[in-house]
Amino acid sequence: MNSKLNPIGIIHSPYATKESSPIQGAFCPDGIGKVEIFPEYEEGLKDIETFSHIILLYRFDRAGEVKLVRPTFLDDEPHGIFASRHPCRPNGLGITVVKLLKRTDNLLEVSGIDVLDKTPLIDLKPYVKRFDCFPEADEGWVALKKERPKPSGRE
Amino acid sequence: MNSKLNPIGIIHSPYATKESSPIQGAFCPDGIGKVEIFPEYEEGLKDIETFSHIILLYRFDRAGEVKLVRPTFLDDEPHGIFASRHPCRPNGLGITVVKLLKRTDNLLEVSGIDVLDKTPLIDLKPYVKRFDCFPEADEGWVALKKERPKPSGRE
Repeated sequence: MNSKLNPIGIIHSPYATKESSPIQGAFCPDGIGKVEIFPEYEEGLKDIETFSHIILLYRFDRAGEVKLVRPTFLDDEPHGIFASRHPCRPNGLGITVVKLLKRTDNLLEVSGIDVLDKTPLIDLKPYVKRFDCFPEADEGWVALKKERPKPSGRE
Repeated sequence: MNSKLNPIGIIHSPYATKESSPIQGAFCPDGIGKVEIFPEYEEGLKDIETFSHIILLYRFDRAGEVKLVRPTFLDDEPHGIFASRHPCRPNGLGITVVKLLKRTDNLLEVSGIDVLDKTPLIDLKPYVKRFDCFPEADEGWVALKKERPKPSGRE
């Protein structure tokens, strides 16, 4: 088993710094980005344009120190890293669902992006309601938290 | 950037072979599994029990050869690997949403599991409706495909 990751592309976004990126793409549905798939993987995009939403799996390549319990951007109370979507996590991988607006060859224009500019893309999967949509889900501790400015200085 | 993955746990499921595992957990909501988090990461589970659903990120550690375009379990027509949830994919990572039934220390009992027994767990994230639930999503080529037995001999 090869456990080393090789990026399949790169995500271009309007967010050059952690401070400027939204806490989650859902809080910023109009954020437009471009997902560039490296030419050697372009063939694997066949039929991607039949989906309206896609799942991006990417590296948090500028994340700081991993702590198993910490305050998050949404809450000053500490939560377990696996009960949070915080970027500083073991294995440093992020998941975001974005809307697919347009495909031009190996470039996908998407909205609802929340990642930093030049984030390495590890995988791309179609979002399939039957597999991924659970309207009955309970949002846990996040339920009562509203979007807010990122607390200053918080990693 | 460390791009090597270190499992944070292991997934126990009723499915010992590829042939016996469902195509997707959503097709088999009663499949019960246990997610074991290694003791050194247990602290990171704090507050996970406040969520009803969790996202498992794992290695397809028994997947075969990667092909960028191939027929899938759901369709005999070939599709791009990034327009499919097929396990034989670059970087070999899978994503499944499961229902969290119960936590006992470092063990999470879940339903709707579709992975092979002893699958290495790479990350665990809370499923948050505001970030992950898109009822308006178009299922693309998958929309007309019904669950069926896995085609014999198909990787």
